[in-house]
Amino acid sequence: MKNPDAAKLSPVPFTAVQVEDGFWKPRLETNRRVTLPAEYEQCKNTGRIDAWKLEWKKGDPNPPHIFWDSDVGKWLEAAAYSLATHRDPKLEALCDEVIERIAKAQQPDGYLNVHFTIVEPEKRWTNLRDWHELYCAGHLMEAAAAYAQATGKRKILEVLCRYADHIARTFGPDEGRKRGYCGHPEVELALVKLYRATGEKRYLELAKFFVDERGRQPHYYDQEARARGEDPKKWWAGRYEYCQAHAPLREQETAEGHSVRALYLFSGMADVAAETNDAGLLAACRRLWKNVTRRRMYVTGGVGSSCHGERFTVDYDLPNETAYAETCANIALVFFAHRMLQAEGDGEYADVMERALYNSVLSGIGLDGKSFFYANPLAAYPPLAKSAAEHVAIVRQKWFGCACCPPNIARLLASFGQYAYSRSDDELAVNLYVKGRAEANVAGRKVSVEQETGYPWCESVRLTLRPERPAEFALSLRIPGWCRGAKLKVNGKAANVGGLTKKGYARVKRVWTAGDQAELTLPMPVERIEAHPSVRMGAGKVALQRGPLVYCLEEADNGKDLADLRLPRSAKLKVSFDRGLLGGVAVITGKALRRDAKGWDGVLYRRAAGSVKQAPIKAIPYCLWSNRGMGEMAVWIREA
Amino acid sequence: MKNPDAAKLSPVPFTAVQVEDGFWKPRLETNRRVTLPAEYEQCKNTGRIDAWKLEWKKGDPNPPHIFWDSDVGKWLEAAAYSLATHRDPKLEALCDEVIERIAKAQQPDGYLNVHFTIVEPEKRWTNLRDWHELYCAGHLMEAAAAYAQATGKRKILEVLCRYADHIARTFGPDEGRKRGYCGHPEVELALVKLYRATGEKRYLELAKFFVDERGRQPHYYDQEARARGEDPKKWWAGRYEYCQAHAPLREQETAEGHSVRALYLFSGMADVAAETNDAGLLAACRRLWKNVTRRRMYVTGGVGSSCHGERFTVDYDLPNETAYAETCANIALVFFAHRMLQAEGDGEYADVMERALYNSVLSGIGLDGKSFFYANPLAAYPPLAKSAAEHVAIVRQKWFGCACCPPNIARLLASFGQYAYSRSDDELAVNLYVKGRAEANVAGRKVSVEQETGYPWCESVRLTLRPERPAEFALSLRIPGWCRGAKLKVNGKAANVGGLTKKGYARVKRVWTAGDQAELTLPMPVERIEAHPSVRMGAGKVALQRGPLVYCLEEADNGKDLADLRLPRSAKLKVSFDRGLLGGVAVITGKALRRDAKGWDGVLYRRAAGSVKQAPIKAIPYCLWSNRGMGEMAVWIREA
Repeated sequence: MKNPDAAKLSPVPFTAVQVEDGFWKPRLETNRRVTLPAEYEQCKNTGRIDAWKLEWKKGDPNPPHIFWDSDVGKWLEAAAYSLATHRDPKLEALCDEVIERIAKAQQPDGYLNVHFTIVEPEKRWTNLRDWHELYCAGHLMEAAAAYAQATGKRKILEVLCRYADHIARTFGPDEGRKRGYCGHPEVELALVKLYRATGEKRYLELAKFFVDERGRQPHYYDQEARARGEDPKKWWAGRYEYCQAHAPLREQETAEGHSVRALYLFSGMADVAAETNDAGLLAACRRLWKNVTRRRMYVTGGVGSSCHGERFTVDYDLPNETAYAETCANIALVFFAHRMLQAEGDGEYADVMERALYNSVLSGIGLDGKSFFYANPLAAYPPLAKSAAEHVAIVRQKWFGCACCPPNIARLLASFGQYAYSRSDDELAVNLYVKGRAEANVAGRKVSVEQETGYPWCESVRLTLRPERPAEFALSLRIPGWCRGAKLKVNGKAANVGGLTKKGYARVKRVWTAGDQAELTLPMPVERIEAHPSVRMGAGKVALQRGPLVYCLEEADNGKDLADLRLPRSAKLKVSFDRGLLGGVAVITGKALRRDAKGWDGVLYRRAAGSVKQAPIKAIPYCLWSNRGMGEMAVWIREA
Repeated sequence: MKNPDAAKLSPVPFTAVQVEDGFWKPRLETNRRVTLPAEYEQCKNTGRIDAWKLEWKKGDPNPPHIFWDSDVGKWLEAAAYSLATHRDPKLEALCDEVIERIAKAQQPDGYLNVHFTIVEPEKRWTNLRDWHELYCAGHLMEAAAAYAQATGKRKILEVLCRYADHIARTFGPDEGRKRGYCGHPEVELALVKLYRATGEKRYLELAKFFVDERGRQPHYYDQEARARGEDPKKWWAGRYEYCQAHAPLREQETAEGHSVRALYLFSGMADVAAETNDAGLLAACRRLWKNVTRRRMYVTGGVGSSCHGERFTVDYDLPNETAYAETCANIALVFFAHRMLQAEGDGEYADVMERALYNSVLSGIGLDGKSFFYANPLAAYPPLAKSAAEHVAIVRQKWFGCACCPPNIARLLASFGQYAYSRSDDELAVNLYVKGRAEANVAGRKVSVEQETGYPWCESVRLTLRPERPAEFALSLRIPGWCRGAKLKVNGKAANVGGLTKKGYARVKRVWTAGDQAELTLPMPVERIEAHPSVRMGAGKVALQRGPLVYCLEEADNGKDLADLRLPRSAKLKVSFDRGLLGGVAVITGKALRRDAKGWDGVLYRRAAGSVKQAPIKAIPYCLWSNRGMGEMAVWIREA
C-alpha cells in the first residue's frame, strides 16, 4: 500500500540543470575556479591530504585529527559535482590521486579512518558519542556516490561499500553487534545516498537502524562511557540534547543541541522516511521542521543561536551579534528543506530553502571565493569582536582548524542546480527562479524548460517549455511566501494565480506543447519584516527584504552606531541597481533618523531628549556583507 | 608644600552616624540579624572556618581553597562593623573564637594563609599572578583594623601587622626582595587601612610599592612564570589587562579586565595618592574614573559587562541580559567613588556612589537577607537562563563556591553610615540623604546634625544643626545630578541654590547655631533616561528613574515578552506608594503598548503590521527585583 505521505516529487538532478543566472552563475564559476583549488591547497598544506598515506607516527607533529577525513570527503564530493557539469582532466586526475590514497588506507577488514588507524588504533569504535568515525564515514560515502555518478569510475564507491559493510557488521540490532550511533549525525543520510547509488538495501536498513536506535534506553552512550571507565554523567557537553540523543527521534518535539548535527540528522530521517514510507517518522520530521522554522530560525535562514555548543537554545531566542548560524547548519537546513519539499510538495519548504540559500548560506563565502564565515551573525560590532575571544568572527577567514564549512559550501554551490526543479510523473515543479535551462522526464516524455529572468533583482520570469511531444502535466510554479500579487500569463493569457495556487505553487495543468510559455510576475517591493513578539531582539525593529533577499546596513555605507539609526515606518525606500557595487546589486536607500551626537561629550546617561537628525541609509543584500573590510553591520533596524 | 589635589574631606565614620531611614534601616537590621549569622553558618558548613585549624591533610576531601581566607576576613570585618554600632556579646565571642584560630594559624615567620600553609606549602609566593595570597592578606588586614577599632582588642591587628611585616620583608624594591604584586588587587587599600590603624608608615610605603610596581617591565609575571617553568605567553586569562598589569598604572587610560580587581586597585591608588599627596597618581585615578563612569557603567551603577573574565569590555558595550555587574564590582565602585569624593569634594563622585548604592549594590541581596546575586543583569529572560549554563543567574542564591559577594555586601551594609557625610575643618558635607543623626568635628567644635526625610521616596529633607557652640563653617548639601529645580530654605528663608552650588554641592557658609535648619526640596518627577548613542543596547529605549532609584519592569506585574512593550514618550507616568509591596515601595504606573499576539500563531516573521494594544505597566525599583520568584525583568524599555 502506498503511504499517502510518501515522497511526491523527486529533484531534477543538477546535471540536468544549466545555471545561466546573473546572481548565481558568477558565484558558481568562482566556486569552480577559485574555491575548489584553494580548498585543495588548504587540505594539502594542513596535512589533511597526506594524512591518508598513514605515515604519521607517535611523536610526530600534527597528528591527523578525528574529523580530517570528512574535510577531504567533502572536498572530493564538491570536486565530483564540478566534474559532473564541467569536465576537467586535471581536477579529475587530482581526485583520482586522492582516491588512490584513500583506497590504500583501507584496512583489510574494510575499516577506513585515518585517526583511528594510526593515531589511536586501540580506540576504534569506543566513543561514538564524542568522536566522529561514522560522521567521517558518511562524508566519504557521499563523496563516493558523487564521484561514481560524475565519472562512472566506481573504485571509491567500492571502497566505501566495503567500509559500509564493515560498519554493518559492527553495528546493528543483532546479537554481538553494537547498538550505537554517531554523536555527530551525517552517516544516516549518506547511507541512503549509498543505497541509491548501489541499490543495496542493507545500507538503507543500516540508516534506519541508526535513526531508530538513537536516544533509546538503556542509553548506548551511558554503556559506552562505562566501558571506557568513565562516569557517563560527567560529560563535557552536559546533556544528550547536544547530539539529539536525549530521546528516541520519534518522540522529540523540539530541535535541540548542535544545529549542524540536528539538521543532518533530520535530513537523514526524512530520507529514511521517504524510502521506507514511514509516516510516523515523516510526522516527526514535520514536527521538528515546524519547531526550527517557526521558532528557532533567523530571518536569514540561519539556525543555531549560540556559539556555546554551536546550538539551538530556546524558542524565539535569536540574538543578532552573537548569532552562530553556522554556515554548515544553514546548508543542512537547505538539505532538510529540500527533502521535505520532495516528500510533501509544499512551497513552505522551498520558501525556507530559498531564504537560506540567498542569505545565510551565501553569506558563508566571500566574493573572492576563498574566505569563509563559520558563523553568520546578524549584527557586527567591531570594537567588541576585536576584544572578545568569545565573540564570533565578523571578517571571513581563509580556513579553520575545524574546517567543516568551506568544503560544505563548495559542494553546495557545485550542485546548486538541484534545488531549482522537482518532478513527478505528472508534474514539473519550479522551486527556484534561476535563469537557465533544465531537462526532466515528465509524463513519460523528456521536457526541457527554459527560464529567462533577472531574479532576484527583477520581478519577471518567462518559462518556455519544450516537451519532446505534447504532454499533459502540471507545471507548478512556486509563488514565494514573501510575494503578494503574483501574476501569471500562460501563452500570453492571464491566469488566476489565486485559484491555481495550492500549497505555495500555482499549478497549471494542461497539455504542454513545445514553445508554450508561462510568464510570471513576482512583485518585489521592499518589505519591512517584523519578528514574533517573543523574539525580544527583534522588538521594535524591522528587517528589510526585497524578493528573497534580506538586506543589511553596513558601516561602509552608513557610518558607525548603526543601532542608533531609526527608520520611520513612513520613510520611503527606494531600490536602485548599482552595477559597480559588490559585483552589481540592487541597493535600498531611504531616509532614517539618528540622534545628534552633539551634547553627548562625556555624558553616558541623560534625561531623554528629542533631538534627532536625518540620516540617509543604504542597505545591501545580507549575503554580501563583509566584503569591504571590517565594520559594523545590522540586519534589524529600529523603527520609529 | 600641600598638594592642591590633596584630600579635601574625610568621611564621618559610620560609628558617628545613626541611620533611622525608612529605606535603609530595615535592610541594615536584616543584615545584622539575618545576614551575618547566615553567612557565618555558610562559612562554617563549607569548611571555611575550620580550615584555620590547619588540620587538612593530603587525601582529605574539600581542600581549603586559595580564596577562603578572604571570605572569613570579610565576614569578620562585617561583624566588627556591626559590633561597633550594636554591642552583641555572643557575636563578639564568636569573632574572638575565629580570631583565636586565625592567630594560631600564623606561622613563626608571620606568614598567614591556610591554603599555602597546608595544601601547597611549597608554592608560597610563587604565583602572584593567579593565586590570591596578597588578596587574602588584604581582607584579613581590613578585618583586623575594623575589629580593633570596634572592640579595642588588638590581637588580630597584631597578627596582621606581623603578617604585613612578613610581606614587607618579602616584597619591595630592595635587593633580594620580590618585585611582585597581587594578580587580584585589594592589599593596596588594605595596607593603607593598616597604616591608618597603626600609624606605621611602612605599610603605606608597601602599598605605594605595589601600586608603583604594577605593570612595569621587565614584567614580574613573566619572570615568575618562567621561574615556574611555564611559558608566560600561555596564560589562561590571555592578557595582563585581565589584572590591570599591562602597563604602569600612571599610564593606563581605560579601565580594563576583571572589574572587581580594577576597582579595588583604583581605590587603593586613590588612598595612596591621598596619603602621599601624589597629584600624578590622583590624575590617573581621575582618568580611570572618567572612563569607567562615562563609558563603561550601567545606569544602575553596575560595572563589568562580560561574564567572560568578569570584566570590562569596550567603551559603550553594556549588554543587559548578559550584564555581569558583579555585586563586588559595584561595591568596589562605591569604594572608589567614596575615596575620590574625599579627594576632590565633587558631587559627581557622590552621584555615582548613590547610583550604585541604591541600585546595583542593594540588588545584590534579597529582602530575606540571605540570598545573593553575584551578577546583577539589567534584563532577565527565564527560558534562556534556565537553558544556558553560560548565562548569569536571575534568582538569588544562598551561597557560592566563590563566595566573595555575600560577605562584601554584609560589610558594606554594616558600615553604610560612612557614606552619608564628609567633613573638613571648615565644612560639613551631606553626601546622602538618609534619615537619622550624625556627629562630626567641624571648625573645632562637635557638630551634630539631624536629617528628617522620607528619601528616596519623598522629596524633602530637613536638616537641623546643633553645634556645641555657634561656629562658622560651610554646610554643603549635595544637589544630586539627577535633580532639577532643587529648592533650599535656611531657617525658613529661601536661598539661591544655583548661586550656592559648586561642584554639585550647595555650600551654605555662615555661622551655624544650635537649632538652625536647612530645608531642601529635591523634586522627584519620573525621568526617562536615555543612554549615549553608542550604547547600542540602549538605542530607542529609556530607563525610568525617580530620585536616585532606577526602576525596572518585572513579569510579575507586566506579563511576559517585556521587550515587546513600548512606552510612548507622551505616556503619563504616575507614582504611588504601595505599602504592601516589597516592604513598601513607590511604584511607577502608566500605559504602554504592545503588539497583539493574535495572528502570530505559527508565524515567526511577517510583513510589519501596525496593530498594537494598550498595556498597563508597573515598574518597581531595580534594587528590589527578583524578590517574587523567577520571571522576566527589564530596566530599559522601548520608546515609541
